[in-house]
Amino acid sequence: ISSQDGQYSLAIGTQIQFDVGGYFQNSSSNNAQPTGAQDLNNGENLRRGRLFFVAKMGDFTLNVTPDWGGSPDGSPTLYEANLNYTGFKPITATIGYFKPWLTLQDSMSSNDFLFLERPSIVEIARNVAAGDARASVGAKASGDDYFAALYLTGGTYGAQNAGLLNDEQTGGTVRVATRPLRGEDWNTHIGISASKAFHLNENDANAGSNQTIQLRDRPELRIDQNRLIDTGVIPANGADTYGIELAANWKNFLVQAEYIRIDVDQDQPTGPSPTLHFQGGYIEGSWVMTGESRKYNPSAAAYMRPSPADPFSFTNGGGWGAWELSMRYSIADLNSHTNDGEAQSVTGGVFGGLQQVYSVGISWYPTDFVRFELQFSYVDVDRKDTSGTQQVGQNFEDLALRTQIAF
Amino acid sequence: ISSQDGQYSLAIGTQIQFDVGGYFQNSSSNNAQPTGAQDLNNGENLRRGRLFFVAKMGDFTLNVTPDWGGSPDGSPTLYEANLNYTGFKPITATIGYFKPWLTLQDSMSSNDFLFLERPSIVEIARNVAAGDARASVGAKASGDDYFAALYLTGGTYGAQNAGLLNDEQTGGTVRVATRPLRGEDWNTHIGISASKAFHLNENDANAGSNQTIQLRDRPELRIDQNRLIDTGVIPANGADTYGIELAANWKNFLVQAEYIRIDVDQDQPTGPSPTLHFQGGYIEGSWVMTGESRKYNPSAAAYMRPSPADPFSFTNGGGWGAWELSMRYSIADLNSHTNDGEAQSVTGGVFGGLQQVYSVGISWYPTDFVRFELQFSYVDVDRKDTSGTQQVGQNFEDLALRTQIAF
Amino acid sequence: ISSQDGQYSLAIGTQIQFDVGGYFQNSSSNNAQPTGAQDLNNGENLRRGRLFFVAKMGDFTLNVTPDWGGSPDGSPTLYEANLNYTGFKPITATIGYFKPWLTLQDSMSSNDFLFLERPSIVEIARNVAAGDARASVGAKASGDDYFAALYLTGGTYGAQNAGLLNDEQTGGTVRVATRPLRGEDWNTHIGISASKAFHLNENDANAGSNQTIQLRDRPELRIDQNRLIDTGVIPANGADTYGIELAANWKNFLVQAEYIRIDVDQDQPTGPSPTLHFQGGYIEGSWVMTGESRKYNPSAAAYMRPSPADPFSFTNGGGWGAWELSMRYSIADLNSHTNDGEAQSVTGGVFGGLQQVYSVGISWYPTDFVRFELQFSYVDVDRKDTSGTQQVGQNFEDLALRTQIAF
Repeated sequence: ISSQDGQYSLAIGTQIQFDVGGYFQNSSSNNAQPTGAQDLNNGENLRRGRLFFVAKMGDFTLNVTPDWGGSPDGSPTLYEANLNYTGFKPITATIGYFKPWLTLQDSMSSNDFLFLERPSIVEIARNVAAGDARASVGAKASGDDYFAALYLTGGTYGAQNAGLLNDEQTGGTVRVATRPLRGEDWNTHIGISASKAFHLNENDANAGSNQTIQLRDRPELRIDQNRLIDTGVIPANGADTYGIELAANWKNFLVQAEYIRIDVDQDQPTGPSPTLHFQGGYIEGSWVMTGESRKYNPSAAAYMRPSPADPFSFTNGGGWGAWELSMRYSIADLNSHTNDGEAQSVTGGVFGGLQQVYSVGISWYPTDFVRFELQFSYVDVDRKDTSGTQQVGQNFEDLALRTQIAF
Repeated sequence: ISSQDGQYSLAIGTQIQFDVGGYFQNSSSNNAQPTGAQDLNNGENLRRGRLFFVAKMGDFTLNVTPDWGGSPDGSPTLYEANLNYTGFKPITATIGYFKPWLTLQDSMSSNDFLFLERPSIVEIARNVAAGDARASVGAKASGDDYFAALYLTGGTYGAQNAGLLNDEQTGGTVRVATRPLRGEDWNTHIGISASKAFHLNENDANAGSNQTIQLRDRPELRIDQNRLIDTGVIPANGADTYGIELAANWKNFLVQAEYIRIDVDQDQPTGPSPTLHFQGGYIEGSWVMTGESRKYNPSAAAYMRPSPADPFSFTNGGGWGAWELSMRYSIADLNSHTNDGEAQSVTGGVFGGLQQVYSVGISWYPTDFVRFELQFSYVDVDRKDTSGTQQVGQNFEDLALRTQIAF
Repeated sequence: ISSQDGQYSLAIGTQIQFDVGGYFQNSSSNNAQPTGAQDLNNGENLRRGRLFFVAKMGDFTLNVTPDWGGSPDGSPTLYEANLNYTGFKPITATIGYFKPWLTLQDSMSSNDFLFLERPSIVEIARNVAAGDARASVGAKASGDDYFAALYLTGGTYGAQNAGLLNDEQTGGTVRVATRPLRGEDWNTHIGISASKAFHLNENDANAGSNQTIQLRDRPELRIDQNRLIDTGVIPANGADTYGIELAANWKNFLVQAEYIRIDVDQDQPTGPSPTLHFQGGYIEGSWVMTGESRKYNPSAAAYMRPSPADPFSFTNGGGWGAWELSMRYSIADLNSHTNDGEAQSVTGGVFGGLQQVYSVGISWYPTDFVRFELQFSYVDVDRKDTSGTQQVGQNFEDLALRTQIAF
């Protein structure tokens, strides 16, 4: 909702995502790591609970968005706080805490996702030098058929503390995308994005470069908060990510896929210290059964959720809203330079684990502002412990319902 | 305040309660438990500091209410975040973090209380499976002469964490109430409510049911934050609460009373493990000396604060607002299956303590939105230590002033 | 922005200050204390991230201001929550969490500062019994040529906790100021302020008065969070501060200066325990190169930032905004009753350190609501360790850019 007052205007919006769900573990979980993952925790979580405050004064726009949700909820935080200048069309220049544009999936609004969480490889890649509330300065430009964004990035909200030594992280991100072919009721999308952490956070005193990085993620559902694939803390001088994005939609059908690779310039104080390579990808599709389409948004170079043609209502003789079926296969491989049976310290590699997730979801959009999504997944984690001999992965099914309100 | 924008409307409200107070302890406090209670802490506290955001779109209503107050203040949190559907009159269906309807006192707005805090037994009972920011799904219905509410409940905001094992709490609540007899300037109220925790939070690994419950409360004033009655952590399989509520008002007089019982299905790993029974109640009355009445609100089945007939103002030749005198006797008994001089471990009982509070309050309502209340209490806690031989309770007087603003 | 709704009105404002900066340390930092200061941390910080909610109903005004910034950011908190009564002109009476009026610098809005941070001696003095979110009750009155404010103060937001013993801090503040001579385009300002902590927070059990105080500050830049001057925790019965303020402006020039003294009534359990005296001051000047003046605000008895005559805009054929050059010398001496080479325990004194900061800043105000300030400082800290023999201070340059948005 927005309100005008002479020189400037203020708009207030909100995004609520409340999740309920549970896990059905198989017998293989007794050795699972971390320990908390041996008995995954059913329950509820407020995934996002944001209030958007957007103030405009001429060519300047301010965004401030506190967030009461989280993973897990319970610790209110800040999603963004940034100043934008739009006086130089079609460029939007930004400074402050911001989510820099990186990958197709992360360019979608979290209200528009096909599933509850981003594919693990996207989540892992965006946390290297992009992600939410990242200190950023840069700009994006977009037109009907192109999108380009470039940012210099630093630490995230809350990363600064008195114990930290000499410098927060510095890095950068870039994303370029286009619609090479399109028609009235179809689009094709191709894009690339990359990010680099030039200098990582320094956490310890006086020992080598003092810089470390850790790659990890939860199994594409955040009721239980354990991360099943995890490289652990890696001494490193830097890291970079590369990704390619492909998508196409026709009427009420959408398919999109990405491949991402992450390189870590390892810097082990002792033993072998090869450069590590991780990778992953996903392919997902959506069929809006009631016929609405997921529109392409050129200013984000990404797809939006369908808008129900016939909003649901008991009282006003309304319709049944929109219904959507979605499917996804996702893979993330955090193993690098390893041999089964050989310890990490011998090869200088990392047994971070290989995770594959098969998901199917059904969404109901009773109105433009409300969405319910029921998601079922099969998760398979294949991970060795650091000695390379013990299986510490597991496989399981999970089921969750999201209630989403977005004004 | 509310603002309209085509399809939906947004209203913003606020509730501030700022308390200042102190304690006058008698000589009996030297052995008091917990240790912090031996020298109760005078000072100030922001009891509630809430901003309400209410968005409506057709039959859907969203509530998001962050809270900067607390017990003690200093840790911002969330009071509620829920989605409601009102398309099926007179039913309101709700999902999200919500305060499920339980007991008469907890159905009153905290702006309308006769005293600064709820009676201890109500506070203790509502925290079993209801209370603020409880994950809930359910519905209420009400008319001029009836009220009924039923919810399935889970954990509270912030209860989820990675260390928690297999399942957050699940439970349920129910409340039914009616006005059997009423006239133009009087009402009678009778109601019952109950709640049950089917499955409690699991906090430890691999030992028995891993489920525990703890019942406790502060002495109906929250300047000092020590709880003087406390069962400690009890291994248990579940717990339930039952309560009966009675009230009547005539013109500017109101009397209300409740009795509540709590059963805990104890599950001690060793020694006797009887089912525990706790109980308590209160009776309180209000006389609005300036003649206004506390109106009955059928949609909550509870009473509201008086609205001053003659708002206070120096500048506009106004009146003196409304003045109210209130009194309360409250008792909460957290002792069960105990014998004086015999240790808890012998009987399998709990020396949680017996607390009685006698309170008198005077409230000034200069306008509809501002209230000052001065409260004086005599608190008597009779509690044995776990060996059953040492008195660890105490008695004292306390005095506090609340400044309340509610728009 | 404000909105009216029959009986009352609500206004929402915002203040964002996002800082980026770094430190250039000289070779003298190897022995610097605290340890974290040996390698000062470059990076980013959200210094202030506030949303203001102001509700008015007749003569009552409510302020609620959450803050997502901090030093460092990452922990959302509350800047203020208070109720004001303005029915008795020209008096404003206030109760709640509030910033009591103390010193000239602290009476300026943090949007209007000449530099990124207050001079250290002002910051240290205001934290004795004033500062942000201080529990306060009192009043201020002001006219065209006078300002007077008097408050009884308590603890700060979040200071209350269950471990604290018998009483939060109590104290008081007073400020009186006037414009003795003034003309159409010039003003002179003189004022005095004082504060006293009658009774300090009690932090420990049963040992003497249990009261302590600690005086300290960061080097007038808060990217790195280490405090370079610090008295440590001093057992004490109370403390007071006195200050005198002088200022004058003529057209687009402003000069202001303050001197402040702090006395601590030390209460060491063993050894000598003299009363400690600390002091400091600053002088700063501003030249608005584009000709605008910093107006005097009689209701705060302090100067405001310039309002650009010719706001910046590419699109609307606008001007270049306002540009301002500012300079400051600041000194804070936290040494008292010490002799070089003699340990603190011998004299009963404190080697808190002597800090001098020379700063120059350039500010660009493209519009009334946006400000960028680039600040360069030379910091010189001369501080002995507690034995009095080892230099633990250092000197360095630092450079920082603030992006500020204030609606």
